[in-house]
Amino acid sequence: MSDISPEEAARHRAKMEKRKAVQDAEVAEKTAEKGLLIVHTGAGKGKSTAAFGLALRVLGHGGKVGVVQFIKGAWHSAERDALAAFGDRVEWHSMGEGFTWETQDLARDIAAARRAWDKARELMADENLGLLILDELNIALRYDYLPVEEVVTVLAARRPDLHVVVTGRNAKPMLVEAADLVTEMGLVKHHFKAGVKAQKGIEF
Amino acid sequence: MSDISPEEAARHRAKMEKRKAVQDAEVAEKTAEKGLLIVHTGAGKGKSTAAFGLALRVLGHGGKVGVVQFIKGAWHSAERDALAAFGDRVEWHSMGEGFTWETQDLARDIAAARRAWDKARELMADENLGLLILDELNIALRYDYLPVEEVVTVLAARRPDLHVVVTGRNAKPMLVEAADLVTEMGLVKHHFKAGVKAQKGIEF
Repeated sequence: MSDISPEEAARHRAKMEKRKAVQDAEVAEKTAEKGLLIVHTGAGKGKSTAAFGLALRVLGHGGKVGVVQFIKGAWHSAERDALAAFGDRVEWHSMGEGFTWETQDLARDIAAARRAWDKARELMADENLGLLILDELNIALRYDYLPVEEVVTVLAARRPDLHVVVTGRNAKPMLVEAADLVTEMGLVKHHFKAGVKAQKGIEF
Repeated sequence: MSDISPEEAARHRAKMEKRKAVQDAEVAEKTAEKGLLIVHTGAGKGKSTAAFGLALRVLGHGGKVGVVQFIKGAWHSAERDALAAFGDRVEWHSMGEGFTWETQDLARDIAAARRAWDKARELMADENLGLLILDELNIALRYDYLPVEEVVTVLAARRPDLHVVVTGRNAKPMLVEAADLVTEMGLVKHHFKAGVKAQKGIEF
C-alpha cells in the first residue's frame, strides 16, 4: 500500500500498541469463572435476537440450551425451527398466550406467567443445561404477573455455572441490580417510521 | 385467580384493548416490502450476537445467510461451529487479522479490509442469499480502512430484497443515514468491572 507514509504507519503502530497494552491488562485482571445473569432490555430491536445468538455460541461449544417464552405463543417460531437442527440440545417452551394486549384477560396472563416460571425452574434443575433464555420475562414482571422478589431470589440461588439471559423492555431495577451484565438496546432509527412493514426473516 | 377484583380485571382489559388498537393501526399502515439495511452499534454487548440471531431467523424460514468478518480471525468461532449445522445455507468468511491493536500494521489492516469487502460484494451477487452479515465493518470504516462513501453506495445499490446487517461500535453518520434500522447497544452494567473474566459461551 504505497499511499501510507512511514510516519502514518508508525503513528498507527504506536496507537495500537497502547491500545493492546490496555486490552491485555484488562484481560489479565479478570479471573473469576461463573455463570452470568444477563439482561437485554430497552426499546430497541435485538433483545431476544441477541439471546438466540448466545444460544448459538453455547451450542457451538457443545452445550445445551433451554428457552422459555413468557409472552410469545407458537406463532413466532423461525428461530425455533432453526434451532431444531440441534435436536435435544435445545429445549424450547413457548408458554405465552400472545402479547398481553391480544388477550385482555389478567387472570389468564398471570396463570400463563406462572406456568412459564414453573417450566423455567424445572429447566434450571437440569444439570446439563449451559444457558437458559427467559424470553420476555421482563414483560411478565412489568405487569406484576410474577413477583420480582421471587424471580430474583430463585435466579440468585441457581447452579453457579449456569448462564441465564432475561429479555424484554422495562427491566425492573431489582433485576438489573442482581444482574452481571445488562445491555440496553436503544432505538436509533426504525423502518416502521418510513412505512415499511414487518419483514420476514427480520421481524418474525 | 380469586385475588383479582372484577374492577382490576376490567381496568386491565380496557388498557389492553387500547394497546391493541394502537398496535393494530401501526401494523395496518405499513405496506412496503424490502430488504433492510440494519446497523448494530454502541459500546454494549450483543451487536454481533443479535446479527447471528437474525441469521437463525432467516435460516428458520429456509433462507441462506452470508457472513463476512472484517476484524475477527478464525479464533472466534463458536457461532461458526454451530451454524455449520446448516451446511451450505451458511457461507462464512473470517477475513480479519485479529483486532487492529493486535496487528499494529496499517497497510496489512487496509489490505485485509479490502479483501473482506471484495468477498462481501461477491456474496451480494448471490441471488439466493437472504441475509448478509458484515461483522465489525464499522471498525474498518472507523479507522478508514475502507471509504464509507464507497461502502454506502454499494450497499444502496444491492438487490432490493437482500437484508444486510452491519455491526461494530462507532457507526459512521453516513451509514446511519442510509440505514433502515439502527440499534444502539448500550452498556448498562458489565461483569468485567466486578473482576469476572470472559466466559466461555458468552464472550467467545
